[in-house]
Amino acid sequence: MKSLAKGRLIGVGTGPGDPELLTLKAVRALGEADVVAHFAKRGNKSNARAIVETHVRPTWIELPLLYPVTTEIDRENNDYREQITSFYEESVQTIANHLENGRTVAVLSEGDPLFYGSYMHLHVRLSQRYDTEVIPGITAMSGCWSQTGIPIVQGDDVLSVLPGTMSEFELARRLADTDAAVIMKVGRNLPKIRSALDAAGKLADAIYVERATMTNTTSMRLADKGDDDAPYFAIVLVPGWRQKP
Amino acid sequence: MKSLAKGRLIGVGTGPGDPELLTLKAVRALGEADVVAHFAKRGNKSNARAIVETHVRPTWIELPLLYPVTTEIDRENNDYREQITSFYEESVQTIANHLENGRTVAVLSEGDPLFYGSYMHLHVRLSQRYDTEVIPGITAMSGCWSQTGIPIVQGDDVLSVLPGTMSEFELARRLADTDAAVIMKVGRNLPKIRSALDAAGKLADAIYVERATMTNTTSMRLADKGDDDAPYFAIVLVPGWRQKP
Ligand SMILES: C[S@@+](CC[C@H](N)C(=O)[O-])C[C@H]1O[C@@H](n2cnc3c(N)ncnc32)[C@H](O)[C@@H]1O
Ligand SMILES: C[S@@+](CC[C@H](N)C(=O)[O-])C[C@H]1O[C@@H](n2cnc3c(N)ncnc32)[C@H](O)[C@@H]1O
Repeated sequence: MKSLAKGRLIGVGTGPGDPELLTLKAVRALGEADVVAHFAKRGNKSNARAIVETHVRPTWIELPLLYPVTTEIDRENNDYREQITSFYEESVQTIANHLENGRTVAVLSEGDPLFYGSYMHLHVRLSQRYDTEVIPGITAMSGCWSQTGIPIVQGDDVLSVLPGTMSEFELARRLADTDAAVIMKVGRNLPKIRSALDAAGKLADAIYVERATMTNTTSMRLADKGDDDAPYFAIVLVPGWRQKP
Repeated sequence: MKSLAKGRLIGVGTGPGDPELLTLKAVRALGEADVVAHFAKRGNKSNARAIVETHVRPTWIELPLLYPVTTEIDRENNDYREQITSFYEESVQTIANHLENGRTVAVLSEGDPLFYGSYMHLHVRLSQRYDTEVIPGITAMSGCWSQTGIPIVQGDDVLSVLPGTMSEFELARRLADTDAAVIMKVGRNLPKIRSALDAAGKLADAIYVERATMTNTTSMRLADKGDDDAPYFAIVLVPGWRQKP
């Protein structure tokens, strides 16, 4: 009995928002995919799916993966961990079925798949069992500093990438001990991030960028931002590179 | 008298090596460019220029920018600083002449232009005077973790990007105080990097990646690498993400 050739899993980085920031390799993968999976919050459209809109094929089997809970509730909470774990397990099962049937499954991932992306939860569970490829994407942070034209690091600079979910104390400590910083996951953490930057003496250097490379993007010095309202798709940059030869 | 419309400066990220990792936007910029500039060491071919080989137009004015000195000698050295500064000033003057003549000048930049890239030396001197756009590129580090399929950071992980040029003490201190790390500029710094990782108790976790996404790439656990010979195009990754829901 000849066994069916198994399918291929591809983690496809879509970049931060501008569809032109897809790589040639990502576009090729979209053309080869039988199944296209994308994560979204229930009731929301997937941002990654919106980015690839012009590359959609009528033959695609679309597989929306809808988070059962918001990912912003307390991660230490047991209910949360259980729900999110079984969500990943179920998603893995659905994708594995497609792979067993020889299909090429592309999982869209906003920015770069293995950099704070949900795709990695599938990757660690599937990449040992199936032929897997990861196509890197332009990260949101690259989108932010390119759009605002801010050289982020040069020479011997240290760059710290800090999730805005950390405690204010830890944020302030790390901000004080780095040349450049990128603060991810801003949203409701903005008041805390502002205080931490202030404590580290770096508020005046901080740049706030919202929805980088998307059509409705805005950016400004954080000190000039009048309120602490920020969407999920926002980043704060603290540029390094003071010594310019 | 009608004044000539001035040209446009574009910093074009070419990604880490695989020509398919160019973005659609970078490809479009290459098609629009009148002048294409690229940095290289004297006697070497520019890596960024090699990446865009299939997009070369016969109409391009090619502008190789050849470093007068190796960038690996002591940065505190005054001679070095003077030579490199006048090299940047001269490059800026040549590019400014093209821009004054209404030409679109694309400056190729390996990886992402504003992330440890030479392009930024031109950017800070020209972007105030001319219409300037920066097209982000896939960074070398994204190429490294994607190629090796290593989830680098998730959730609340901190990522530290550390130049291998730092002192061993500083490297070890920072490696001990982060969830994940990327060590850039490996080359001759590898023995020092190895000791620092060892001191921080992280040598067993470290992955060495050479010439990521290029045809002659290799990667291995750093602990399994038998020697301390490393090329300029090498990175060491220390993955974060221990807590996997
Ligand atoms: C789960 S992480 C995903 C990161 C993504 N994989 C990457 O490579 O950048 C989500 C965070 O990325 C940032 N982000 C994503 N897209 C963004 C954009 N277009 N503009 C600003 N920030 C963005 C925000 O900080 C957001 O909270
Ligand atoms: C001057 S920095 C340029 C970084 C680049 N602008 C980026 O976005 O990644 C040069 C360093 O990048 C790393 N690098 C660049 N290309 C690489 C590749 N293909 N594989 C591994 N490391 C690479 C090496 O550590 C090298 O010493």
